[in-house]
Amino acid sequence: MPENSNLHTPISKILIANRGEIALRIMRSAKEMGIKTVAVFSEADRNALHVRYADEAIYIGPSPSNQSYLVGEKIIDACKITGAEAIHPGYGFLSENAAFAKTVADAGLILIGPSPGAMEIMGNKLSAKAAALRYHIPMVPGTEEAITDLDEAKERAIEVGFPILIKAAAGGGGKGMRIVENVNDFEEQMDLAVSEATSAFGDGAVFIERYVTSPRHIEIQVLGDNYGNIVHLFERECSVQRRHQKVVEEAPSSVLTPEIRAKMGKCAVDVARSVNYTGAGTVEFILDENLDFFFLEMNTRLQVEHPVTELITGIDLVKEQIKIAAGGELNFRQEDLKISGHAVELRVYAEDPNNNFLPDIGILETYKTPKGNGVRVDDGFEQGMEIPIYYDPMIAKLITYGKDRAEAIARMVRAIEEYEITGIETTLAFGKFVMQHEAFKSGNFDTHFVSNYFKQDQVKPLNGDEALIAAIVAAKFFQKEVFKAGQEQVTLQTSNWRKNRLKY
Amino acid sequence: MPENSNLHTPISKILIANRGEIALRIMRSAKEMGIKTVAVFSEADRNALHVRYADEAIYIGPSPSNQSYLVGEKIIDACKITGAEAIHPGYGFLSENAAFAKTVADAGLILIGPSPGAMEIMGNKLSAKAAALRYHIPMVPGTEEAITDLDEAKERAIEVGFPILIKAAAGGGGKGMRIVENVNDFEEQMDLAVSEATSAFGDGAVFIERYVTSPRHIEIQVLGDNYGNIVHLFERECSVQRRHQKVVEEAPSSVLTPEIRAKMGKCAVDVARSVNYTGAGTVEFILDENLDFFFLEMNTRLQVEHPVTELITGIDLVKEQIKIAAGGELNFRQEDLKISGHAVELRVYAEDPNNNFLPDIGILETYKTPKGNGVRVDDGFEQGMEIPIYYDPMIAKLITYGKDRAEAIARMVRAIEEYEITGIETTLAFGKFVMQHEAFKSGNFDTHFVSNYFKQDQVKPLNGDEALIAAIVAAKFFQKEVFKAGQEQVTLQTSNWRKNRLKY
Repeated sequence: MPENSNLHTPISKILIANRGEIALRIMRSAKEMGIKTVAVFSEADRNALHVRYADEAIYIGPSPSNQSYLVGEKIIDACKITGAEAIHPGYGFLSENAAFAKTVADAGLILIGPSPGAMEIMGNKLSAKAAALRYHIPMVPGTEEAITDLDEAKERAIEVGFPILIKAAAGGGGKGMRIVENVNDFEEQMDLAVSEATSAFGDGAVFIERYVTSPRHIEIQVLGDNYGNIVHLFERECSVQRRHQKVVEEAPSSVLTPEIRAKMGKCAVDVARSVNYTGAGTVEFILDENLDFFFLEMNTRLQVEHPVTELITGIDLVKEQIKIAAGGELNFRQEDLKISGHAVELRVYAEDPNNNFLPDIGILETYKTPKGNGVRVDDGFEQGMEIPIYYDPMIAKLITYGKDRAEAIARMVRAIEEYEITGIETTLAFGKFVMQHEAFKSGNFDTHFVSNYFKQDQVKPLNGDEALIAAIVAAKFFQKEVFKAGQEQVTLQTSNWRKNRLKY
Repeated sequence: MPENSNLHTPISKILIANRGEIALRIMRSAKEMGIKTVAVFSEADRNALHVRYADEAIYIGPSPSNQSYLVGEKIIDACKITGAEAIHPGYGFLSENAAFAKTVADAGLILIGPSPGAMEIMGNKLSAKAAALRYHIPMVPGTEEAITDLDEAKERAIEVGFPILIKAAAGGGGKGMRIVENVNDFEEQMDLAVSEATSAFGDGAVFIERYVTSPRHIEIQVLGDNYGNIVHLFERECSVQRRHQKVVEEAPSSVLTPEIRAKMGKCAVDVARSVNYTGAGTVEFILDENLDFFFLEMNTRLQVEHPVTELITGIDLVKEQIKIAAGGELNFRQEDLKISGHAVELRVYAEDPNNNFLPDIGILETYKTPKGNGVRVDDGFEQGMEIPIYYDPMIAKLITYGKDRAEAIARMVRAIEEYEITGIETTLAFGKFVMQHEAFKSGNFDTHFVSNYFKQDQVKPLNGDEALIAAIVAAKFFQKEVFKAGQEQVTLQTSNWRKNRLKY
């Protein structure tokens, strides 16, 4: 009998409207709960692992996601065919689509996620901010309305405090955006910004806000049920980003004090409460140099980086999502939750760090994942498979857990070196660079980590063709007789596997 | 710089005098500490994973272990060649050989383990018992010396309490061994035992001891440093055994109360203290129906089942062993340790549960390990490799961790179903049988679990040839068109992977 069979709306079969690692990850939790799973797949994913892992699998169309994974009706049809009562959307695709959420409810199915209303409010920057403000959540200080008057602007800039950012109200793409370091430069920069905005957008109105020089990205995981219980599961720090996208995450943050953690946690719960949030969600904040934090947005889905929270809290977030969707009440309170140890995640992307992190699609000629104590690999591929060009090029999430941050980092380095991927470039070597960088190790870094420290060609691929050739040569070279013990040859042999890495 | 570089006798390179999963497991911890590793290998292990994983590898002789892994001089020579300062013996082979430990010390090398003296005392049942008795550790009640006189024997039997076990002092192999349920049967059974012993061994003397009807095997992990600090890391239960050898282990035990745990823990620390124990060791107890426990023996090495303790305490036992051997002081106290969650281990052996668990050696034609949250696989093989006939046929240890026992068990079932091994029979299906058995699930079992509940042919292999054929047939059968959505075919496909298992 499924683990949730005693709940309000028991679920016996879930359709996972997603692919890759997250589809597998969700199915694993469902399976452990005794719930059957249905996979959906596009043409490119016909032989994907998530299809093999599910109890049933439904083909939903051609490879481009707008003809398969993004087509809500096909997902709902697939539920009808298979008798799945619930849909887990994972992340991306339809996961934050309020219209889809409504369609699911109208079809008499359960969407494992928040209400369409909560999704809609948090999906829009303005309504999200308005909801949060009702709970007095700190926002980046600045003007709430666009202004044009120089004196008024200067007055507001002084109130906000320097450095400030002037940005065109009608703007976008950085046009009409200026950082002003101190009050003396304000008038000149304001003039320039207004004239730039006027010529670019025909509208000289600007917003003024605090410029956070050294921002850190900190987010709080929340869980809410249908009975008004909302808890937070502490923070994740996701400041190491490339192309403004997260690549290394950890929990807890190396910089939060227990007081700030508690305060931020309370704010996150309040943000969730402002929309009667149900299920798993994430409230994102920016943290400045003074450890003041400001609300950014709320993501109304499971995040890619949720495993680090699972490891430090012992809570399986997908199981909680399912139980909540089945009408279950949270069976722990805020005071029952505590942080135990430290977890780090590296997103292993099929992309080339030496080529601006551009995707490097191809076949996984070698693919061997690391193992051992404190290592978790959430992936959706095996050796010989091809990374499809149609979707996000993430191959795997490599997550390590240790009793403290130093152990989690040392374990990540070990796991990266143990990971064997050939055939494509990946972010593995970049991950090792991050783990071994003094700024990261000391915890003294911000979202500018990559631009501040990472240069092209700074890392060599761990398992490229060159490395393989070098390994073979090295192995032959080192395999030599070293002495004779009695009648036997005793040979010193330096291994391929290690040599492969010793080069770097 | 190695993590232990600030310690008394820093270690920069360790030779692992072992093979298979335990060699890899030790190397992983060493690597995370920044310590170089040296593998040794026999002929059969030339291409083994532990050889590839090490920084250096030394061939030490033909496949039979008495010509390679058991030859102390070759191990010491390999240290000299490579400059390794320390030897980790793992378990089995030379790990509890006091003479080897002395030779290592004489060669100026560090053995990562207890002193030769502690090994020697605990390696002998009589001296171990004598040491433990000095700390008043409970022993199975019985006669301390062999007796022949019927009246004296009866008097002692009544003192000990029925049921009792009469066993020949000179005995072995069950000869002259009799269980006596109550005092009325005593004289008859004693006569039979004495005459059986006399005819078998020419000596009619017998021991009398309490017969534990429903014994559970509980052991306590201890750690001691060179400064007199000894702590325990709680218990492991290893009652599920086949051929008197452990096959399923868990931590904590489902049956201990906090009071008994504390009492047993203190006894274990006292046993360790009786020999000034240093390093990692395990004190084994038998627990009876009344939750009274009695000392069995102390194992002076890392145990196979140590990972369950690592998962519930967050302590890496191999790292602690290394730090202690390098002269480090334990950096936690008893009161800092606590149990968090629950862990279960299944030993995946290359043996056939349907043929009395006899080894089933061969090639791992398919070998895919499970992944995901809370799953740890410690193994020493990969797909295509052969299980050598020369050594213990353990392929892997599958360990699952959950917030409680029910979650750890559900996760174990999921992980077993996800594990793909073809080419040989394994204990995987047997493990699933155990996990799903009411006696195990309820915690109401003892060391007779296998004889009480398991019958030949009760489990079918998860991945045998038959299963594979069935899976292919099933996949073809279930792959059918189910409806047309617009211009596209939508296909319902029931996957191989699942079908493979759905049969059982």
